[in-house]
Amino acid sequence: MSEAQELEVLRNKIDSLDNEIHKLINERARCAQEVAEVKQKYAAPGEHVVFYRPEREAQVLRKVMARNEGPLADESMARLFREIMSQCLALEEPLNVAYLGPEGTFTQQAAVKHFGHAVQCAGQVSIADVFREVESGNANYGVVPVENSTEGVVTHTLDTFVHSNLNICGEVALRIHHHLLVRQDATESEIRRIYSHAQSLGQCRLWLDQNYPNVERIAVSSNAEAARRAALESGAAAIASEAAAELYDLVMKSAKIEDRPDNTTRFLIIGPQKTLSSGDDKTSILVSSRNQPGALYQVLEPFHQAGISMTRIESRPSASGTWNYVFFIDFEGHADDANIAPVLDNLRKISVDFKCLGSYPKAVL
Amino acid sequence: MSEAQELEVLRNKIDSLDNEIHKLINERARCAQEVAEVKQKYAAPGEHVVFYRPEREAQVLRKVMARNEGPLADESMARLFREIMSQCLALEEPLNVAYLGPEGTFTQQAAVKHFGHAVQCAGQVSIADVFREVESGNANYGVVPVENSTEGVVTHTLDTFVHSNLNICGEVALRIHHHLLVRQDATESEIRRIYSHAQSLGQCRLWLDQNYPNVERIAVSSNAEAARRAALESGAAAIASEAAAELYDLVMKSAKIEDRPDNTTRFLIIGPQKTLSSGDDKTSILVSSRNQPGALYQVLEPFHQAGISMTRIESRPSASGTWNYVFFIDFEGHADDANIAPVLDNLRKISVDFKCLGSYPKAVL
Repeated sequence: MSEAQELEVLRNKIDSLDNEIHKLINERARCAQEVAEVKQKYAAPGEHVVFYRPEREAQVLRKVMARNEGPLADESMARLFREIMSQCLALEEPLNVAYLGPEGTFTQQAAVKHFGHAVQCAGQVSIADVFREVESGNANYGVVPVENSTEGVVTHTLDTFVHSNLNICGEVALRIHHHLLVRQDATESEIRRIYSHAQSLGQCRLWLDQNYPNVERIAVSSNAEAARRAALESGAAAIASEAAAELYDLVMKSAKIEDRPDNTTRFLIIGPQKTLSSGDDKTSILVSSRNQPGALYQVLEPFHQAGISMTRIESRPSASGTWNYVFFIDFEGHADDANIAPVLDNLRKISVDFKCLGSYPKAVL
Repeated sequence: MSEAQELEVLRNKIDSLDNEIHKLINERARCAQEVAEVKQKYAAPGEHVVFYRPEREAQVLRKVMARNEGPLADESMARLFREIMSQCLALEEPLNVAYLGPEGTFTQQAAVKHFGHAVQCAGQVSIADVFREVESGNANYGVVPVENSTEGVVTHTLDTFVHSNLNICGEVALRIHHHLLVRQDATESEIRRIYSHAQSLGQCRLWLDQNYPNVERIAVSSNAEAARRAALESGAAAIASEAAAELYDLVMKSAKIEDRPDNTTRFLIIGPQKTLSSGDDKTSILVSSRNQPGALYQVLEPFHQAGISMTRIESRPSASGTWNYVFFIDFEGHADDANIAPVLDNLRKISVDFKCLGSYPKAVL
């Protein structure tokens, strides 16, 4: 056979595979519609039927990754199924998702990574607005940043949970890059101060120590504000994103200067419903205790006793004044699990205040 | 059956469909690998084998849209196949794509819409840099904006083609939104001037005439620059994107003020290779003629005679001075088509200079 003939044979085979894949995807979409019909049929009059099931989606994606034998990589295949589910779900119920905007932010990327492309996303100007959109029902779900693997939590988001009845129903992890930006007319010897958000300065600390040990570091309100200042002042640089470089007409002096190549930010999906167990979950709780010796120990001990693995703990001063400490704790497992429910019951009794922020599937992708 | 039982039956069915879809996608990926092997086998020693075939991808997507019977919408299904092809191609050859950056721009969106998510995208600071990246081989393809449906061409991109040997190998269309941005402390009566890029002012002309008939409109170098000025001057507003609002701490006074709800920007995919006919193509040419009466008629007449449908014509003053007029012309069909090749041959003879910028599949999505 000639090259053209060999390619022809393979392309015909691809075409017939595409035909089959196409048929099966539409059959899957019909099944998703039937699921919606069954749910409607059994719903009480006026009941708001929920079609999006985070635990079910996580299970499907885990199965995809587990059974995959290639040649496509596990993650590539899971991304394809993420999109297939997104399109099927849009047939049952077009989802509205509120995220911390504007367009082009990492939080928008996280929303798309979690929900796929078949949802309506609306950027909000603050984390509080994302909560409000979901609380009012304008949006079905919200996406907010919560934690960076280098610098710890984005405190504001956790504080918002204190006064909200929304549940955490999912988590997303995203890689984040930082760059050192200077004016077009700047030279190396000229950099006398470096502006950035405190979190970004922290994420690039080692790199700054090595490359600009004697340069003043100034924390400002946002990386965009840092870029704005670097554009105005001679002798200044900023740590910020590529987008900020463009908007303020700065040049990238050094790219990807974050200390950890796996520098990730964690985002939470928030919604009005509780999520059932997916078999591999995390739970986030808020516990407050009196300012007395051993308070933290008292909170942690039940977890240790029950052999529950904690993935994160953060203590925050109480804003309301009625509590002396607030602890945000993430641990492995679902609040309904047999070994966890009694621990939470116990905590509820011994703490000044206790709130389960939600149990949700661990990020699959 | 109970609700739980009915759902169980449907979910099992979905699981087994997913199993089949999964197997078939990997089988498709194996076929794509075999295509790569065949191409390698027949390649001359040292030959750079090209795996990405725009005309073949366009054909596959058109077949998907044509045979689709739902319930998924034609476009939803085509998007899924866009991603499946993107992942399969990445196995054959991981593509590098240069786009007019930074991250978060419409041009990046266009790159992803055209190539799917399984490519490496790198933002460039100028259109000339995108061309250079592709010419030097650092990137396999480039993505640049070329035309807006309301305001006509982005002139700079076309001028760059005059001195480049790259070919147009695809086109992408994207919806674009504009917003009226003001400072947090502004009131309606205070708006005395509105800044924006000339193109955006043009795209919102009717809306401005109706809502701000007596307010001065000032064209600046970019919408980001407009936002920067609106943030500094009291009594000023800007027409710009949501991203600009956030960076300059402006508020959105009116959203989506573009006159045409279908306001789209067209982007071109540029690359080193020529693209074969997909059966439904467009061709872009550059023709220069002497400044003499009837010059334009002389250029257009052969198209009319051959019954070729022109989709766009733009005349530009020649930058080099050796030409008096340069015409950029888009028409339907492929340069290799039997009815088109003779017309181009004829144009080549009668014009001062003639260049075929490329034949490429019409945008499918």
